[in-house]
Amino acid sequence: MKYPQVVERLLRLVNRLPGVGRKTAERYVFDFLLSWKMGDIQELSTVLLQMRESVGTCPICGCLSEAGKCYICSDTRREKEILCIVSSPKDVFTIENTQEFHGVYHVLQGLLSPLDGRGQEALRLDSLRKRVQENSVKEIIIAVDSTLEGDTTALVLKEELADLPVTVYRPAFGIPVGSSLEYVDGGSLARAIAGRSLF
Amino acid sequence: MKYPQVVERLLRLVNRLPGVGRKTAERYVFDFLLSWKMGDIQELSTVLLQMRESVGTCPICGCLSEAGKCYICSDTRREKEILCIVSSPKDVFTIENTQEFHGVYHVLQGLLSPLDGRGQEALRLDSLRKRVQENSVKEIIIAVDSTLEGDTTALVLKEELADLPVTVYRPAFGIPVGSSLEYVDGGSLARAIAGRSLF
Repeated sequence: MKYPQVVERLLRLVNRLPGVGRKTAERYVFDFLLSWKMGDIQELSTVLLQMRESVGTCPICGCLSEAGKCYICSDTRREKEILCIVSSPKDVFTIENTQEFHGVYHVLQGLLSPLDGRGQEALRLDSLRKRVQENSVKEIIIAVDSTLEGDTTALVLKEELADLPVTVYRPAFGIPVGSSLEYVDGGSLARAIAGRSLF
Repeated sequence: MKYPQVVERLLRLVNRLPGVGRKTAERYVFDFLLSWKMGDIQELSTVLLQMRESVGTCPICGCLSEAGKCYICSDTRREKEILCIVSSPKDVFTIENTQEFHGVYHVLQGLLSPLDGRGQEALRLDSLRKRVQENSVKEIIIAVDSTLEGDTTALVLKEELADLPVTVYRPAFGIPVGSSLEYVDGGSLARAIAGRSLF
């Protein structure tokens, strides 16, 4: 027995979300059908469209923005000579929440990934070089994932920026704060010992 | 730093889905923002509303139905004297897919759960008793979850139906097909041995 056609259509759409398989999609769709009030479905339907229409990317840094320049690029108190490169707008919010960084961002359109067809154009190098020169940027922090793709992207970025008068950093790697040594993976521990600091 | 307001609104809505916490909601919302085409968002928005508007419940059995009586209740070949009680419309599809059951269904509005404010009215007893009498139902299979709430619901249903001339069944409990004994939980194994069948 098949689900009604409209249920099947919604299932196929929900199925596209990251990490959502057929079972999870069914769970969500039945929740919409049986537990959500009509008003809430209407709100969801409207907000989805509204968000997709009104939220775009900042023409300067590439972060989320509702109209033109984003909140951070418009803020004159930010130190424009320190630039942090991240791979997704989401990472900007993650770093902002630490309240530890007061520079500006450059958001990539994802990490380099030949398999997904993402090459160097995702790095938005032209815009990056232009900003480095115009704002006389001194420090660049490449804060991308510590994965194979992240490390490759960081390396390519470093090489591409080699001719500019900037110092390139990556965030420190080491033992996660609050974790016990026993459960730290070997890679992190090795980096933590190699990069030990005076106590 | 906060997300734009419309993003925050969508996050709060997505957050209501079963098993979706803040992190998963963020993952979905950023996927909508960065990976979905505008056309797909429009389709999702439309299909959500369409589904919620067009799919209702069958007035007889309580399963999903797009207009009036559901597919199963309208089918004259189904054996109306065998009735299967399930706790959600989803279970009807699960049982139908086994192609092992040819009777009709009675869908509860959830299992008894005083904590969630679901009392006996969720069992739709009046409609059930009426159907049992009108269709001279002979067999009732209570196919609800084998959990504390499911077992309680099954017990209450059995007592409520005690005065009617029906035989009440529950599906067999035992070892899941295809599993090795080593990994079967004690409860299932105990039920499997107690309910052993001639070989």
